[in-house]
Amino acid sequence: MRVKQVDVSGKQEVVREAVAEGYLKLRPETVRRIVEGKVEKGEPFALAEVGGLIAAKETPKLLPLCHQLRLEKVEVDLTVDEERSCVRARSVVKARERTGVEMEALVAVTIALLNVWDAVKQYEKDESGQYPHTEIFGVRVLSKVKGEGA
Amino acid sequence: MRVKQVDVSGKQEVVREAVAEGYLKLRPETVRRIVEGKVEKGEPFALAEVGGLIAAKETPKLLPLCHQLRLEKVEVDLTVDEERSCVRARSVVKARERTGVEMEALVAVTIALLNVWDAVKQYEKDESGQYPHTEIFGVRVLSKVKGEGA
Amino acid sequence: MRVKQVDVSGKQEVVREAVAEGYLKLRPETVRRIVEGKVEKGEPFALAEVGGLIAAKETPKLLPLCHQLRLEKVEVDLTVDEERSCVRARSVVKARERTGVEMEALVAVTIALLNVWDAVKQYEKDESGQYPHTEIFGVRVLSKVKGEGA
Amino acid sequence: MRVKQVDVSGKQEVVREAVAEGYLKLRPETVRRIVEGKVEKGEPFALAEVGGLIAAKETPKLLPLCHQLRLEKVEVDLTVDEERSCVRARSVVKARERTGVEMEALVAVTIALLNVWDAVKQYEKDESGQYPHTEIFGVRVLSKVKGEGA
Amino acid sequence: MRVKQVDVSGKQEVVREAVAEGYLKLRPETVRRIVEGKVEKGEPFALAEVGGLIAAKETPKLLPLCHQLRLEKVEVDLTVDEERSCVRARSVVKARERTGVEMEALVAVTIALLNVWDAVKQYEKDESGQYPHTEIFGVRVLSKVKGEGA
Amino acid sequence: MRVKQVDVSGKQEVVREAVAEGYLKLRPETVRRIVEGKVEKGEPFALAEVGGLIAAKETPKLLPLCHQLRLEKVEVDLTVDEERSCVRARSVVKARERTGVEMEALVAVTIALLNVWDAVKQYEKDESGQYPHTEIFGVRVLSKVKGEGA
Repeated sequence: MRVKQVDVSGKQEVVREAVAEGYLKLRPETVRRIVEGKVEKGEPFALAEVGGLIAAKETPKLLPLCHQLRLEKVEVDLTVDEERSCVRARSVVKARERTGVEMEALVAVTIALLNVWDAVKQYEKDESGQYPHTEIFGVRVLSKVKGEGA
Repeated sequence: MRVKQVDVSGKQEVVREAVAEGYLKLRPETVRRIVEGKVEKGEPFALAEVGGLIAAKETPKLLPLCHQLRLEKVEVDLTVDEERSCVRARSVVKARERTGVEMEALVAVTIALLNVWDAVKQYEKDESGQYPHTEIFGVRVLSKVKGEGA
Repeated sequence: MRVKQVDVSGKQEVVREAVAEGYLKLRPETVRRIVEGKVEKGEPFALAEVGGLIAAKETPKLLPLCHQLRLEKVEVDLTVDEERSCVRARSVVKARERTGVEMEALVAVTIALLNVWDAVKQYEKDESGQYPHTEIFGVRVLSKVKGEGA
Repeated sequence: MRVKQVDVSGKQEVVREAVAEGYLKLRPETVRRIVEGKVEKGEPFALAEVGGLIAAKETPKLLPLCHQLRLEKVEVDLTVDEERSCVRARSVVKARERTGVEMEALVAVTIALLNVWDAVKQYEKDESGQYPHTEIFGVRVLSKVKGEGA
Repeated sequence: MRVKQVDVSGKQEVVREAVAEGYLKLRPETVRRIVEGKVEKGEPFALAEVGGLIAAKETPKLLPLCHQLRLEKVEVDLTVDEERSCVRARSVVKARERTGVEMEALVAVTIALLNVWDAVKQYEKDESGQYPHTEIFGVRVLSKVKGEGA
Repeated sequence: MRVKQVDVSGKQEVVREAVAEGYLKLRPETVRRIVEGKVEKGEPFALAEVGGLIAAKETPKLLPLCHQLRLEKVEVDLTVDEERSCVRARSVVKARERTGVEMEALVAVTIALLNVWDAVKQYEKDESGQYPHTEIFGVRVLSKVKGEGA
């Protein structure tokens, strides 16, 4: 075999939780627009939260080695960091399953950020249509808990 | 309306191409394993290329404001940068459509990197199951071309 | 957060059942055609039952706040009410889960009715291509049961 | 054959537009909550607009006889009608294709309304968990245009 | 790269048609039941036709190297061959695209046959729950045409 | 009803495993190319294994009567049989569920074989673009186990 999915049937079904975060660098003017509610395509954070939520549930399709889980909670939260001129996405995913949910949390965070990018892309392009400033960075798993504490 | 999809019916149907890249920081030992073909779950780069390719086609579902396009070429390429201890993903997406394809290229790159993460995650976790080193960064659009040059 | 999915991890996993119904108003001639098996596109009710069944399983994607459930039974039934010149869809959905299944039953019913509409639309349009008579109405949850009785 | 998809290869590729609407009857208190922004699950209309937008693009999967189209515009708008104690959804769908887009507009409207229902369902249930008041009605195609006018 | 999707942007957009077929060997008693309409799960051929139709449209997801096409016609037809004790599926797929549609026709045929298998599986199992007789065979492309003749 | 999904709520949740296989007849030169790693589109077996894995998880959508399961292991393995000039796919699927997983195993096998076909199709076509040699055959369930032994 070239690709091997782990057999999780021997693992224990316990509550598992993962928290992930990620950042999207934007121009100061774009961050300003988000804060002031002046994005023509609408509310980028509502869009990003819904997009991230749906994406988390699509994880087994996007990451073929991931197992199908029944996520009991998916929380995606977006905030603005004006000082660093960026948007931060943070996700919490929870499930009573045989395998961890950090990949689901990471999918939620990255797709949420890409939704913000998509919503504000007209303000990020330079005159030749390029994106010299926009960048996703710092996509990490903040914590992973299993059992009691989760 | 809270969310507004752009009406692209007035735009011109021309060939459009976008190139995107992104990086996944890994432990040196994990990068070594990839180079030496010693990842137990199989070939992470084959998995990531296929995963990125499929994800690019799923863009209109993951990013609700994106339009349905017929992508004429999706190329996802993964390479190792041992010095910086990371994996690089690069995607090229091409289509004769009324709207650009940079979001599709970005989705391909991020999902490809998440597939690599998923394939090697057992080597990245510390003894308490956390990921102190792993991180996605530098996800950017390298170029966007329209018409003749594409 | 702009959108909040309920955390169901504290709820009890019991058998839950929901019954929903809905109606599609059609021209008397169209209802007649269905009864006599003279719909050129084939059997609208077989199509609608399969379409409704699939849609119920797609609920977590169509309704982002819905959780992923393993439905143990999805039943979609279509009947004709010649007197009121309409088609009635009725669905029963059952699952041993931590949350109710009425949204799944409602999705099944509405998508089943839209499949009937799609199958007979050529008989419903007037000479200018409009639908002056066709209408979905009365989409309701008839009952919701939890535990023993379900 | 039991089910026959129309062969559209002989039809003309012109701009086509469809407008659909539908209503969701709610308790006056629930409508009040929406108006005052007091729905605990967040912003039901942002959710519904995104859900309807995604659903419109999923039409060929939900309605098997529908063809795959590249929708050039999907607009879903939600408003409150306090007097009639209901929510109204209205969708506009546009595409340069060989077949009409009214089914896409209808899918957008019904799934948008079901998303509102899902977001406010806790306020609609009576003490025994039933929905005596909630109902979707008046789902219709308001207009269908082809060519120049669209 | 480990996996390379063909760039079709240089190919000509012409009408393309493919015809495929395949067979499902069943016990004579099962074939009899289908002919007599005595399958408890309902009408296996209606189910199979709808299932095959949907699957054809899902081809770009199931076969990652396939491009997204707008299929203008998908026809799936099922017939019984009592003498050879099998069911035959035949599909015709048509599209005005830059690449052929034979993979779509093959997906339609195989998924249609698997739907029949699923619908009648209770009659095919022996007393230990195995399938000694059931088998899919003869899945082939019967013809592929491009341009005028298609 | 025209189509009836079985109610599995009364069945026992035990570990269930199914093994399926299938074959793809190819020209000897094509089989040679696969063995020598000379397929221009890349690694057909890596592609096929990932494709089969994803397809197994999509079973409830492709086969509408199938229930949503959480597969705990999906294994797809491809090997070459040079003597018989064909490729063999073998899948093992495992889940702790209320219903068997043989349909998932069959979907994995057929879609894996179609992915190989897609990857090598340029070598299989004759000068008029037809496939006189290529054929899927021998798609069977090798074993189905429930409980202890699984």
